[in-house]
Amino acid sequence: MSKITIVDVARISGVGVSTVSRVINGHVDVSAKTREKVLAVINETGYVPNDSARNLKRTDAKCIGVLIKGITNPFFSPMIDIIESEIDRQNYALVLRHAGPEEDEADVALELENEKRLRGIIFLGGGSEQSKEKLRDLKIPAVFSTIGATILDRDGNAEYSTVSVDDRLEARHITQYLMNLGHKNIAIITEAMGRRSVGHLRLEGYKDAFAIKRQPVNDELVFYVEQNMEHFSIENGYRTTQRILASGKDITAIFCVTDLLAIGAMRAIADAGLRVPEDISVCGFDGMEIGRYSNPRLTTISQPLDQISRETVKLLFDLIESRSSHRHIVFPGELIIGESTMKCLT
Amino acid sequence: MSKITIVDVARISGVGVSTVSRVINGHVDVSAKTREKVLAVINETGYVPNDSARNLKRTDAKCIGVLIKGITNPFFSPMIDIIESEIDRQNYALVLRHAGPEEDEADVALELENEKRLRGIIFLGGGSEQSKEKLRDLKIPAVFSTIGATILDRDGNAEYSTVSVDDRLEARHITQYLMNLGHKNIAIITEAMGRRSVGHLRLEGYKDAFAIKRQPVNDELVFYVEQNMEHFSIENGYRTTQRILASGKDITAIFCVTDLLAIGAMRAIADAGLRVPEDISVCGFDGMEIGRYSNPRLTTISQPLDQISRETVKLLFDLIESRSSHRHIVFPGELIIGESTMKCLT
Repeated sequence: MSKITIVDVARISGVGVSTVSRVINGHVDVSAKTREKVLAVINETGYVPNDSARNLKRTDAKCIGVLIKGITNPFFSPMIDIIESEIDRQNYALVLRHAGPEEDEADVALELENEKRLRGIIFLGGGSEQSKEKLRDLKIPAVFSTIGATILDRDGNAEYSTVSVDDRLEARHITQYLMNLGHKNIAIITEAMGRRSVGHLRLEGYKDAFAIKRQPVNDELVFYVEQNMEHFSIENGYRTTQRILASGKDITAIFCVTDLLAIGAMRAIADAGLRVPEDISVCGFDGMEIGRYSNPRLTTISQPLDQISRETVKLLFDLIESRSSHRHIVFPGELIIGESTMKCLT
Repeated sequence: MSKITIVDVARISGVGVSTVSRVINGHVDVSAKTREKVLAVINETGYVPNDSARNLKRTDAKCIGVLIKGITNPFFSPMIDIIESEIDRQNYALVLRHAGPEEDEADVALELENEKRLRGIIFLGGGSEQSKEKLRDLKIPAVFSTIGATILDRDGNAEYSTVSVDDRLEARHITQYLMNLGHKNIAIITEAMGRRSVGHLRLEGYKDAFAIKRQPVNDELVFYVEQNMEHFSIENGYRTTQRILASGKDITAIFCVTDLLAIGAMRAIADAGLRVPEDISVCGFDGMEIGRYSNPRLTTISQPLDQISRETVKLLFDLIESRSSHRHIVFPGELIIGESTMKCLT
């Protein structure tokens, strides 16, 4: 059997070779109908893209490193595709690495820099205080994505850029949303990490909402996730909510600082024979896909991951080509009102 | 400020240095209470693990490559941790790579082999027919994990090993479970890919269940996911189920060949004003965490990812140390009966 070529696929699909190539390379400027037709032909014929161009790029091209903190965090998944295609448009290749929970991402970044033809690096997650010092050794520009300036740098001498939402401000907004629904006894589920962590910033925002209302924060309603398992996981949300319910505290709403925690919280409430939102309102933070399909749909703060991803790559190339110095770009989050919150009835 | 050392952490925690080390390295033989205490001290003191041992390993140690097909597939996430710790116990380091949807994982594997001190490679997902030829060029042992023998090799001349469930058999089992509940008009949501793909194998199992009952398969109840988006995603399950409902076909159950599809299917049914399982039973395949926390909980086939992960690493080291030739190991799946299926009422 002679090998199927891209020309065959184009002929059978009734489109040009360049269109087939655009479909294969995931370009967005192809109509859904055309894409579907070409993909169907590729599937039927068993066509294998001739990777010479891509291989050339992979072995010779300049690269951008993308370093993900935490292997199992699905929050970052939707960002990868966008970042990859933006990097691709600049004719760079993407090199992806994970840093394990006990690895310092700065170490991994320095290793990556030595190995590869890296021109820049994007950090997704991470940004602990200890990394900061080590980052000085990086010779290439770095952009932290979804990590705000306040996590990394308090004295303004930026040696890296950030693109993110304002975690503290957005957490205040969603807490105020619960307050406006009449909720007073609002529990929060967060993690007990350093003061620059996302969990801490979102807790600060929760406290800000009370401060603005001149109401004291009830420390007994601040619940920390279990330490001996992944912090921002569904299971941890489930277990921590079981602790909240067992505590006997009189609460009418729970603010979970991530959507995954909230998914677990809703299930724990249902398993206790209570209803969301009639008995307890639940809200999350992040705007992950699962919250749009859960039952009930989740009220949350949506992070504009599309914009954040694109701006991250744009800023990185501005830095690489010396069109910009380091900057901290903040996008607004969006309050998504789902079915998991309602007016306080008590 | 003098640098905090592991000795300081041990002293403040009131445990030995080796215990602190075990906590840092994620060993499981530390009590939850001790772990929590040590982690709290690490957080408070800002202790940074001295990575010298780990760094040494990372730069000099022999490596095992783990290649994940598809960047956004959370199905594999729980396997990574187990595989990493098993590799670690052998004093090897793990190198993780992703292969994009249009990349041939065999190409990426060959590239990885050149770059790294690889002694073996584990494939999570992938295993297309075209990869098979190229795999002959790999000089190191390869194990495909969660991919069965039939996907890769039909003539028995194994040049790689596999560890998986029998997708076809397990799909037959869950279809038979629906039949035993009295369902006759059972739709299936799968993908239209090559005959060795997981989607195709699970469709064959569905057909087997009908064949055993000597009932014809109604081809109009076989629904394929949308081509122009990620195949095994929640959104695709949602959209494909909308098509099923709009088709006006009289169905009482849907077998989704992955759990993510099933999560989307349940939401689409609810949005159409119907109830799961009273109006339509839904089941999935995989046993992902989300199905244990969804509302209703999902009926599914659970893959023993723990066993599969451990056996994958064990087999790979047997191959590396020439204690075994290539083998195909099959684990049974487990039918998990959730709340999303019930007796057919019509």
